[in-house]
Amino acid sequence: MGRVLVGVDLGGTNVRIGIVSPKGRVLKKEEYPLDLSQGGLKIVEGLISNLENFVQKKIGKNDQLLGIGMGIAGAMDMKKGRIINSPNIPDLNGFGIREFIQKRMQSPIAIENDANAFALGEGWVGAAKGSSYYCGITLGTGVGGGIVINGEILHGSGGKASEVGHMAVDPEGPLCGCGGRGCLEVYASATGIKRMAMEAIEKGEGAEIVKRAGGKVGEVTAEKVFEAAQSGDKTAQKIFHKMGRFLGLGMVNLIHLFDPEKIVIGGKASRAWDSFIKTTMEVVMERVMEGSREKVEIVQAKCGDDAGVLGAAFVALKKHGGHRA
Amino acid sequence: MGRVLVGVDLGGTNVRIGIVSPKGRVLKKEEYPLDLSQGGLKIVEGLISNLENFVQKKIGKNDQLLGIGMGIAGAMDMKKGRIINSPNIPDLNGFGIREFIQKRMQSPIAIENDANAFALGEGWVGAAKGSSYYCGITLGTGVGGGIVINGEILHGSGGKASEVGHMAVDPEGPLCGCGGRGCLEVYASATGIKRMAMEAIEKGEGAEIVKRAGGKVGEVTAEKVFEAAQSGDKTAQKIFHKMGRFLGLGMVNLIHLFDPEKIVIGGKASRAWDSFIKTTMEVVMERVMEGSREKVEIVQAKCGDDAGVLGAAFVALKKHGGHRA
Repeated sequence: MGRVLVGVDLGGTNVRIGIVSPKGRVLKKEEYPLDLSQGGLKIVEGLISNLENFVQKKIGKNDQLLGIGMGIAGAMDMKKGRIINSPNIPDLNGFGIREFIQKRMQSPIAIENDANAFALGEGWVGAAKGSSYYCGITLGTGVGGGIVINGEILHGSGGKASEVGHMAVDPEGPLCGCGGRGCLEVYASATGIKRMAMEAIEKGEGAEIVKRAGGKVGEVTAEKVFEAAQSGDKTAQKIFHKMGRFLGLGMVNLIHLFDPEKIVIGGKASRAWDSFIKTTMEVVMERVMEGSREKVEIVQAKCGDDAGVLGAAFVALKKHGGHRA
Repeated sequence: MGRVLVGVDLGGTNVRIGIVSPKGRVLKKEEYPLDLSQGGLKIVEGLISNLENFVQKKIGKNDQLLGIGMGIAGAMDMKKGRIINSPNIPDLNGFGIREFIQKRMQSPIAIENDANAFALGEGWVGAAKGSSYYCGITLGTGVGGGIVINGEILHGSGGKASEVGHMAVDPEGPLCGCGGRGCLEVYASATGIKRMAMEAIEKGEGAEIVKRAGGKVGEVTAEKVFEAAQSGDKTAQKIFHKMGRFLGLGMVNLIHLFDPEKIVIGGKASRAWDSFIKTTMEVVMERVMEGSREKVEIVQAKCGDDAGVLGAAFVALKKHGGHRA
């Protein structure tokens, strides 16, 4: 394989590891659930042991490992290589993960927030390739964002920038997990879609959605709502219309504040693209100022589940790989 | 005086010109109304002739003019030194003002958007001094913004970033001049305050405000509403409460997206500070995520009407003045 990078996408529930070429091809990969049961440092020990196994098994003696990059859910202190706050792995709050892993792995480590890694992956070889001024949005369990300005991630003064999911798009809207109200995340995430479905079911309007979930309200997911919408169910379609509308309002704010060339939208809830994007674009065309609305491209992500691994590898390449190959 | 800069603040109605020391002191200044009556290039010719007179009169033979900086209302193409779009001086849309003035004045010229100049002025010697990561907001006829990231203005991919006044803070709110709806500007500008006062008057609730305007509805201004609020009028106080609330929602978005150290608020409508800031801070403390809300400082601008002239001079200093003195 020659010169390679390792990219790690450390989400709240799963870990993805990949070997990535310096040109941005994922050569080998694996995915496994993150074991949070033992808590504390044991989580990191488990991660390191998996990483060591992976590297030993997959990288040959003649290959050169340029560096390991990690995308981690949460706010990062980039200078100190420390996790400031990870809502999904709170045991690691304040932990100096970069140095700890670097000592154990004998390889240069670079870290980044996971939504930023997503944005960088899409910029390297995905839907934002060739752009150095764009926003990446992930519609997953929550809504994350990575904002790239002149090729560099916007980290903010303390590693907490790009919280795209917590723009207030509906001042009197539902409470959000962050403590706010009417955040973009309560409408445009998988969690938000499920919440809106539950509201519909309570009002007696969700029969088709419940049917898709095998008749069990407890098994309603965003995917089931999407299936119902695709089959023509008006209630499910209304939910995606609402999602699309608030996503559009969020895009209006991003365009007016950042003036990006592109906005790339990914994450698992973006698979329902055709169910919401028309509404989103209507809001954008109606509300963005003349001169900006004609220019900005809003596109679907291209790297699928690999974006995080690719972006993490890109961070390692930039930091430890010398010139781009 | 020695080495000096000239800063020009070219607003929609007035022009301010100042001689500024390399340490950020305004040494001499004048202000006059912008003559838009003749239209087209005549506006620029008039400006140049005023500038020439000012420089000739105020700068001595032994002084060294390092450069002239101009803050202009509208979106700027920084690479080409061209006005993309100036809502207040539409005659100049597309005009390559930098080169034109440079040829005539025989002095190096630097241009910048006026709200960006405000932000830079406050960062140089005002309320954001010492910070390299902050947002500057002007509450004037409209609402403008300048966002500074690592000491540099965020221009966007095409010179249209930082349109803080056109964040949608109230999706179903009143129409905005930009074509959008419920933009921050419709609540947090002098125009917005006047509009809210008119609404109150139509409902028969604005007696005290009309009284302050000499009994003439046509003479109601944001200032009159402020006077009424200060005198204890509940209707006027409610207007500033509403302004403060939407301003707070805008600040929530800025904090979540940019993670600034400071937000500096200036412009003529900010003189009503005590009437709205309490509400603004309540919204910020209630809605910004933990970890960010304790950290960010929201402060009143310090340079008053000089901020634009100072910022324009700063742009010239940075571009043409060599090292900062």
